[in-house]
Amino acid sequence: MVTIDQPAQMRAWASQEKRAGRRIGLVPTMGYLHEGHLSLVRLARQNADVCVASLFVNPLQFGANEDLDRYPSDAEGDRAKLESESVDVLYAPTAEAMYAPGYQTRVSVNEVTKRLCGAGRPGHFNGVTTVVSKLFHAVCPDVAVFGEKDYQQLATIRRMVRDLDWGIEIVGGPIVREADGLAMSSRNAYLSEDEREAALALSRSLGEARRAYRSGERGGEALLEKVRSVLTAEPLLEVEYAELVDPETFDPVSEVGEGALLALAVHVGKTRLIDNALLAAA
Amino acid sequence: MVTIDQPAQMRAWASQEKRAGRRIGLVPTMGYLHEGHLSLVRLARQNADVCVASLFVNPLQFGANEDLDRYPSDAEGDRAKLESESVDVLYAPTAEAMYAPGYQTRVSVNEVTKRLCGAGRPGHFNGVTTVVSKLFHAVCPDVAVFGEKDYQQLATIRRMVRDLDWGIEIVGGPIVREADGLAMSSRNAYLSEDEREAALALSRSLGEARRAYRSGERGGEALLEKVRSVLTAEPLLEVEYAELVDPETFDPVSEVGEGALLALAVHVGKTRLIDNALLAAA
Repeated sequence: MVTIDQPAQMRAWASQEKRAGRRIGLVPTMGYLHEGHLSLVRLARQNADVCVASLFVNPLQFGANEDLDRYPSDAEGDRAKLESESVDVLYAPTAEAMYAPGYQTRVSVNEVTKRLCGAGRPGHFNGVTTVVSKLFHAVCPDVAVFGEKDYQQLATIRRMVRDLDWGIEIVGGPIVREADGLAMSSRNAYLSEDEREAALALSRSLGEARRAYRSGERGGEALLEKVRSVLTAEPLLEVEYAELVDPETFDPVSEVGEGALLALAVHVGKTRLIDNALLAAA
Repeated sequence: MVTIDQPAQMRAWASQEKRAGRRIGLVPTMGYLHEGHLSLVRLARQNADVCVASLFVNPLQFGANEDLDRYPSDAEGDRAKLESESVDVLYAPTAEAMYAPGYQTRVSVNEVTKRLCGAGRPGHFNGVTTVVSKLFHAVCPDVAVFGEKDYQQLATIRRMVRDLDWGIEIVGGPIVREADGLAMSSRNAYLSEDEREAALALSRSLGEARRAYRSGERGGEALLEKVRSVLTAEPLLEVEYAELVDPETFDPVSEVGEGALLALAVHVGKTRLIDNALLAAA
């Protein structure tokens, strides 16, 4: 595995691969890798000839009161995991290379990002689309893989790529869960034992809604009521949102017809967790 | 010359050229081509193996009260001119292909665009950087050529490319003038005979400032006074701005040291004209 830390070097590598006719796959990450990330790497390898994983904790996508300063990291562990998944290039640009003095450009997707995490984290998606644009220009991927846990991010990137005529294939990777149902997240490292126990209510509440949906319930309010009753029973949890939306536009949905995304953001102490379930006719 | 009107087809062509190891040059235009545009095509051909000219009148960069509806066009004439300059591909996407329903993405450069044309035409540069991003993704140029007449646009594109790690070489082409000094512009077609005569004051005023600069004048106010006295002597002209700025950051400059850009925007009847001169020690 080669490590590259400058955009120009990354582009030079990509341009050689293109000339050789090889398909490049990219998995953007902020590091502290878990099995969820590695499942995305495997998806990228299935869809491309060579695989790049990027590792960059992007300051632009963190709000002023968020966890940028304490975001967990494990450079050696990450490297070993990527190496064992046969990643070809680890692209780990420095903050100086990414946002040099005078930096002033933004890429924004303005509708899909309005609600849910976009409402709760102003500027977040703007930071995501900007950094992903930079990664795409440096790595020149034919295919890029994003986790479905951040479903709104996935929908936003899809919209950006379509709108900007990018021609990059965007693949979503299914949520990977711990044995007890908790969706894997680097932020789970923040949780105390009690908090981690309480956090199980997220996946449990989604399971309840899914069961009701399978039993024929299509009313949005009724499904959300199932979710809320599970979540509010946990005194350690504070619900930021629990909503049913169209999985492409993220417009709210009051009746689940063809399918809808049930998405949650919940605070457990100082930790903000998200999870979701796609409710769709089989 | 091949004509392509869909982004996906354009990308497919570009990807073949890349695989063949050929350098792609791009000249973005809004059509109604004149010798200024053709000089940019020649520059692109000098800097690349194959040359794409794009033709798209971009609604996103026109304000509500501007001249989108009457912007001059001559599809047949444009095609003949590009053909005679041995352009390989005319990329002329339809408005439907560029901004389909649901379109919602913007690329913005936020500092270089604040003053001058950015102040007079709110949203203009945002429209420019967005459409140029789309053209860059479709055409995948190694080098793109922009005219120095739109110097703020050139500086904005340079900033965008650097900020977004694009690795495209941006080449500026010198202003091409009519025999009497008027900078070539598709919008010159709007001018009546009297207006065209009055419009000569733009280049004349820049000439006066340049002479003063060559004689040793370095004071910004003194140089701008030269310019204003020529412009205000023409009753048909209304000055939008006349400013001295840093040619990279577009910050105002009060003393011309290493060099500065003297930039003008002037209204002649309903027509808005711009012109500029780089004052720099030889």
